[in-house]
Amino acid sequence: MDKALAYTEAHFDRFVDELKDFLRIPSVSTDSKRAGDVRKAAEWLAVHMRALGVEKVDIMETAGHPIVYGEHLVDPAASTILVYGHYDVQPPEPLELWTSDPFDPQVRDGNLYARGSCDDKGQLFMHVKAAEAWFQTEGRPPLNVKYIFEGEEEIGSKHLPGFLREHKELLAADVAVVSDTALFGSGVPSITYGLRGLAYVEVTLQGPAIDLHSGVYGGAVHNPINALARMISDLHDENHRVTIEGFYDNVIPLTPEERETFASLPFDGESWVREVGASKSKTETGYSPLEGTTARPTLDCNGIWGGFTGEGAKTVLPAKASAKISCRLVPGQTPEEITAKLEAHFRKHTPDTMKLTFTDLHGGHGALTPTDSPAMQAASDAMEAVYHQKPYMVRSGGSIPIVADFKRILGQDTVLMGFGLDSDAIHSPNEKFGLDRFRAGIDSVIRFMGLYARTR
Amino acid sequence: MDKALAYTEAHFDRFVDELKDFLRIPSVSTDSKRAGDVRKAAEWLAVHMRALGVEKVDIMETAGHPIVYGEHLVDPAASTILVYGHYDVQPPEPLELWTSDPFDPQVRDGNLYARGSCDDKGQLFMHVKAAEAWFQTEGRPPLNVKYIFEGEEEIGSKHLPGFLREHKELLAADVAVVSDTALFGSGVPSITYGLRGLAYVEVTLQGPAIDLHSGVYGGAVHNPINALARMISDLHDENHRVTIEGFYDNVIPLTPEERETFASLPFDGESWVREVGASKSKTETGYSPLEGTTARPTLDCNGIWGGFTGEGAKTVLPAKASAKISCRLVPGQTPEEITAKLEAHFRKHTPDTMKLTFTDLHGGHGALTPTDSPAMQAASDAMEAVYHQKPYMVRSGGSIPIVADFKRILGQDTVLMGFGLDSDAIHSPNEKFGLDRFRAGIDSVIRFMGLYARTR
Repeated sequence: MDKALAYTEAHFDRFVDELKDFLRIPSVSTDSKRAGDVRKAAEWLAVHMRALGVEKVDIMETAGHPIVYGEHLVDPAASTILVYGHYDVQPPEPLELWTSDPFDPQVRDGNLYARGSCDDKGQLFMHVKAAEAWFQTEGRPPLNVKYIFEGEEEIGSKHLPGFLREHKELLAADVAVVSDTALFGSGVPSITYGLRGLAYVEVTLQGPAIDLHSGVYGGAVHNPINALARMISDLHDENHRVTIEGFYDNVIPLTPEERETFASLPFDGESWVREVGASKSKTETGYSPLEGTTARPTLDCNGIWGGFTGEGAKTVLPAKASAKISCRLVPGQTPEEITAKLEAHFRKHTPDTMKLTFTDLHGGHGALTPTDSPAMQAASDAMEAVYHQKPYMVRSGGSIPIVADFKRILGQDTVLMGFGLDSDAIHSPNEKFGLDRFRAGIDSVIRFMGLYARTR
Repeated sequence: MDKALAYTEAHFDRFVDELKDFLRIPSVSTDSKRAGDVRKAAEWLAVHMRALGVEKVDIMETAGHPIVYGEHLVDPAASTILVYGHYDVQPPEPLELWTSDPFDPQVRDGNLYARGSCDDKGQLFMHVKAAEAWFQTEGRPPLNVKYIFEGEEEIGSKHLPGFLREHKELLAADVAVVSDTALFGSGVPSITYGLRGLAYVEVTLQGPAIDLHSGVYGGAVHNPINALARMISDLHDENHRVTIEGFYDNVIPLTPEERETFASLPFDGESWVREVGASKSKTETGYSPLEGTTARPTLDCNGIWGGFTGEGAKTVLPAKASAKISCRLVPGQTPEEITAKLEAHFRKHTPDTMKLTFTDLHGGHGALTPTDSPAMQAASDAMEAVYHQKPYMVRSGGSIPIVADFKRILGQDTVLMGFGLDSDAIHSPNEKFGLDRFRAGIDSVIRFMGLYARTR
């Protein structure tokens, strides 16, 4: 283990250069015009892994973007880990807000700026480089490793559940390991044991068949933007609770013990939201910002558009207006349930002057994993050795639907060792990843592999 | 007069070809990148008018787009008309909904399709061609004519009031004549005696400083789209009345006689809104669609945007959301008053989690003109001769702020002889102008000039 750590120290600058090469490929999975770039990223990754010495590396096709599968088995009696990551990235828009090109990685103040630097190419690459350190110093990893790197995480991992079902034996392992979450704070290690789910839909209201002159028709024809604004407004009550019928029915309430733990964490919710420029927090009445973002379900509009949005003043009464709306779900809720309730709500409340189009864009299950397994302990010890501080066990507000799928389909719990920061702007302009965290991540993974190997 | 009408009959096909040339110039005044094209349209028009024999034609500069001024004085004792039109056009977007290119005029089924064909290049050009008919047959028009054609109507005629104030003597006339309104129906002539005013603003709500991940921050940071939707929703009550404080304070109510006249017009409001694809009307409770669109003030969102609006599902909690909002005003209300009340309302109701940006984009006064003047009678007789039916005296829901300015600054009433149809899609894709109406308009203007000349 020490040799592998020393190897990383010696070769770290090259690791950063290689990550930059990886980040230059604009593998934006939401954009169908970028499909070629998504594949290019998969191919780059496969070539790179083969070069390290991973014995079996395949680009496996799905009905969408391909999966890069790698495997290196050292001993049938040893433990096996299944490392998951995704090589696709969020769209970079709005481009004008980036200080440097999202696909031309730049280091400033010790941070590597590029789309995907943190989410998730950088974190995925920590595992690849940890394996290299083991290969180069011990000739092989200390346990059996399997890698599954997908290209559709940012579009809901559409084809991954089917892939897991189809390849259960190939993917058999003792535990899954995912680095796609954040540290509790800068220099404050944490391991995530809870994730929220997601239900993401798009709605369109259409009134007239064509855009109309607002002077000629205003006052007689119902305006779809005004109608949609009312429908969206009505989705929250005065306590900022979601008004969709049955929305909270299956929510597993926080226990008093959990609420005490939340309250004891070194976390100031008001400072945290002020760091991103918000003047104050806005939560469901009765819950703290930390509870609101990690343990309570929410509803947010992710986008809205309609009518004239250019320069100047066009007096149009538009034919239609649309919004993207998503709910973060907590254990107990399922995306199928909430999407159905969202649709029922919209169908029931669409005014009789409007036609509704409702599209289910994607969904994912939340997850809660036990904190006392050997793998979780090894992860905790590994991070403690790197950070000289025992990691907090926390819940994350984000969604990694695949974690629920690993449990449901493969029977595997997941260790979520993440090295991002909430301020990394992972879905915003100027996404970044601290090089210190890239380094700490590689060291933590090397140690985790070594420590977990010893538990059998 | 008969000779001028016969000349039009003989040369009409050429008139249409010339109008097509005029329409090919994409004089979109809302788009600052098109400023060169706007000027090109002014120059084309000036060259064309000089060629007809109009004795004085000048391109007069403003701080924005230029004004084309023309004048031909035949006799100090004769009546003088001031013809107003605008050579700028609405933006053509969304382009994909046009059957043919908006700036490549095409005739289909007797209609000329192009941006500006009806609003207002086509209607402006009727006056130019009527003058040509008089020049070519009688050597001069039957009365003194002045022409003022502006390039900023679609951006609120910003520099026109100042121009009127600066050139009061130059523009002195007995009456203003404007063709920028619609017929009451296909084949049903009308003269407009009332116009609504306009107050047009843009609002932006900003919450966090940057776009955020909706999983990480959703539940603690207030979403600007949701907040804006609520503010827009709250602008109407359950009777579809505008809730802005004092909004109706200065509205001059419809008299029982006016309401009787409205009810007696051959107009089926429900059929009219179904013609444009709306399933049914939506009016302020207690008012008919005709009253709602012409004699009652309204509020409409003309555009809304925020967050991710591309393909797929980006889980963003956006930094800001914006909307364009406009009110149609009725006599008694002023744009200054209503813009101030809108701003006060938005400032008062902006949640403490949001920063508001409020921009006054433009405004215009409404107008009511007497129906019994010699000019109105001449216009009525002219249209009756062309249509074999007495024109209805009606109010229009649209806004031509310049009509109020002609009265306030120049002391002139305006005759609104319009030949559009509500179905001409003047602010929508596939704008058109019926060639029969282009012809009837030229004939009506020729007759109006002849008849009005005889009244002195």
